[in-house]
Amino acid sequence: MKKKSFVWHPNTQMKEWDSFNEIVKSKGMYLIDSDGNNYFDAVGSMWCNVWGHSKPELTNAISRQCKKLQHSSMFNLTNEPAERLAKSLIKISPGMHKVFYSDNGSSAMEIAIKMALQYWNNIGETKKTKIATLENGYHGDTFGAMAVGYVPEFFGKFKKQLFPTIQIPVPNKYRIPKGYDYLDYQNYCLDKVEKKFSNDDKIASFVMESGAQVAGGVIIFPKGFQTKISKLCKKYNILLVLDEIATGFGRLGSMVQYTEQKSIPDIVSFGKMLTGGYLTMAATLANKKIYDSFLGQFNDWKHLFHGHTYTGNPISAAVANENLKLYKKNNLIKKIQKTSKIFEEYYDKILEIKTVGDIRHKGMLMGIELVKDKKNKTPINPKKSINKIFFEEGRKHGIYLRTLGNIIMLVPPLAISEEELDFLLNRTMDTIKSAENKTT
Amino acid sequence: MKKKSFVWHPNTQMKEWDSFNEIVKSKGMYLIDSDGNNYFDAVGSMWCNVWGHSKPELTNAISRQCKKLQHSSMFNLTNEPAERLAKSLIKISPGMHKVFYSDNGSSAMEIAIKMALQYWNNIGETKKTKIATLENGYHGDTFGAMAVGYVPEFFGKFKKQLFPTIQIPVPNKYRIPKGYDYLDYQNYCLDKVEKKFSNDDKIASFVMESGAQVAGGVIIFPKGFQTKISKLCKKYNILLVLDEIATGFGRLGSMVQYTEQKSIPDIVSFGKMLTGGYLTMAATLANKKIYDSFLGQFNDWKHLFHGHTYTGNPISAAVANENLKLYKKNNLIKKIQKTSKIFEEYYDKILEIKTVGDIRHKGMLMGIELVKDKKNKTPINPKKSINKIFFEEGRKHGIYLRTLGNIIMLVPPLAISEEELDFLLNRTMDTIKSAENKTT
Repeated sequence: MKKKSFVWHPNTQMKEWDSFNEIVKSKGMYLIDSDGNNYFDAVGSMWCNVWGHSKPELTNAISRQCKKLQHSSMFNLTNEPAERLAKSLIKISPGMHKVFYSDNGSSAMEIAIKMALQYWNNIGETKKTKIATLENGYHGDTFGAMAVGYVPEFFGKFKKQLFPTIQIPVPNKYRIPKGYDYLDYQNYCLDKVEKKFSNDDKIASFVMESGAQVAGGVIIFPKGFQTKISKLCKKYNILLVLDEIATGFGRLGSMVQYTEQKSIPDIVSFGKMLTGGYLTMAATLANKKIYDSFLGQFNDWKHLFHGHTYTGNPISAAVANENLKLYKKNNLIKKIQKTSKIFEEYYDKILEIKTVGDIRHKGMLMGIELVKDKKNKTPINPKKSINKIFFEEGRKHGIYLRTLGNIIMLVPPLAISEEELDFLLNRTMDTIKSAENKTT
Repeated sequence: MKKKSFVWHPNTQMKEWDSFNEIVKSKGMYLIDSDGNNYFDAVGSMWCNVWGHSKPELTNAISRQCKKLQHSSMFNLTNEPAERLAKSLIKISPGMHKVFYSDNGSSAMEIAIKMALQYWNNIGETKKTKIATLENGYHGDTFGAMAVGYVPEFFGKFKKQLFPTIQIPVPNKYRIPKGYDYLDYQNYCLDKVEKKFSNDDKIASFVMESGAQVAGGVIIFPKGFQTKISKLCKKYNILLVLDEIATGFGRLGSMVQYTEQKSIPDIVSFGKMLTGGYLTMAATLANKKIYDSFLGQFNDWKHLFHGHTYTGNPISAAVANENLKLYKKNNLIKKIQKTSKIFEEYYDKILEIKTVGDIRHKGMLMGIELVKDKKNKTPINPKKSINKIFFEEGRKHGIYLRTLGNIIMLVPPLAISEEELDFLLNRTMDTIKSAENKTT
């Protein structure tokens, strides 16, 4: 336990914490702290871990690259691992043409937004400057990302500094407005999209997560929803920007979620799982139409004014390359699809728990929404943060949890085995049950 | 040479480049490409390299950490290398209290801006929402960073999406407006600051680079300038946010530039050199006043809504720890101060070159400004980008250059030896001379 510390933790009310478990090593599904306690990594160290911890192939890839070339910049130069990775990313991403590297998901989305806005400027359509999004979307915590993924409770304090966007409601199956059924409401949302698109020729782009909203509360899109949005984008000449940072790379059961959703974007971002969950790196991919619009004479100033120091870092790219190799070698996507069925076996049992209102699951992601009473669907609302309560309770049961508001998130390493997933689900149910008296 | 490629390079008019040199290994001051060519790293792989490439102590630190713990999140947990690093950062940064980690400089500055804005909200001063900055400042390429470092030529296409800031002129010794001398103009700028501060009680914070504007054209602040701004901030109850991403960690000759500038900030960002230049990582440090304002009951929602997946990554933190250890062990700052004198010996010789209008130097940074004629100070303006011309010319002379507009940047690895710096300066002069007919 680390008591005296100089770290300000992310998204954390520091007053709630007088110490943090200090992780010193890791193995497979487990994180091990300085007191020798083992914690099952239920959230894949924030939704990014693919193979579990200390995977020799990945750590060797880092050490190997480390001996040759640690960092060489992409400003005027290129490097071998980054080139190889770009080739692989284009190969798995139908319709995409070029890869722009960055260091985290927020930055990748900022780049996506800049590409989408500047595209119209590049081709002379200078009036197209608005961005439409889904309510409840999340694309990161930097100012551009906060603007397109604007959740008032999170970012209200910065509203004055955020550019406005057009927000469209999203069909959350668990909380359909009165007077609608699920299908009606989907159509209502899609009609809203079409109405906005048809009445406003200044919309440059529609930005959304691909397959599901994750940080917004695990809202899994109904079949056809994303496809229809992509068709409306085409119909009204609006760019589709997809965020696959949390949802791609197998998290929802497909390598690239937009192929499953039949919605080829103009621009798409990847991150999190890209390096297997070991080093930070992100990428923004664009199609040829976007890319070509940025070409011109130097003095036309049409190029993208964006670049980070460590863009295309060779060590990060090397571990990403090894990671992608392992996906193929181990047929990981197939394995995820099979293992993921274990979740289904637990649906009924989890829903029986008194405080569980809803479960939402796709691929290797499950959200368990906790409520005071099942009928009114009122979220539990203890004085202490729900996250703190469940982290402590999970710890007692040997699992590392990080909740999202009143939602327990299960986002384990993608290569988790069926036995390990059984274990995790049982421990999670035990945790929820034993926390009952603390949350109601 | 990499011809067929899928990479979209940062800040690059891709049409100018039909291929890029592909770097495959590195050693000391040299990057080595796939054809076996050696390039002296004149820009420290974008201003971040400390010890040269393939430094065994640093690569071993990465490999060692890699075997134990690759990534564990700072959401609800902590890890040993990140804790150790935070302690060291606080130790070298007078007045600072806590460390908030992120993945690149832009993100670190976004965090700094969010902290500064939310601070006033936290203490009930909800009207203080404006940000003042220096003209020509640069703080990164994400939307918040573009807003506070707004250069119209770079970011004009996104103006509609950027929040407005108050901009104060900056004393550029080489281009003083008519009717002023340097000292007059400094006072004019400082008077402007005071006028703005005294007339506007809505200013939350003043954001500036510490010691010099680098990306804005190597404008080195005159002695006392930053100190006076910091005093005005105190006088008018405005937070001082400093950006030491490019200028701290010895680049300008001091470990922490703000101590040399006698201007203790409320918030300061570090990046680039933090890991020795091997992996991306950044940090935003805040004083106790800022940090304490974020403390409260969870349901007060006073905490900072910001966090990246790889925040406090153990591998990056481990190499940063080793890097800091080497600073101390090798007395690097002293060494920089000594080696840096070599630059001075070349002042006259460089200024004699026909196309050189001005040189600006501090610590391990030199900007050489190229002009058509010395009297009128008109920047050279060839059809091809100046960067492309000098990159190609530099390559012929065995050095890797990346210019900044019409400025040749020398930003070598900080531990460069006197002999190596002699070599670099000679090669740079040869490059400028031999490029003369291409730029005029």
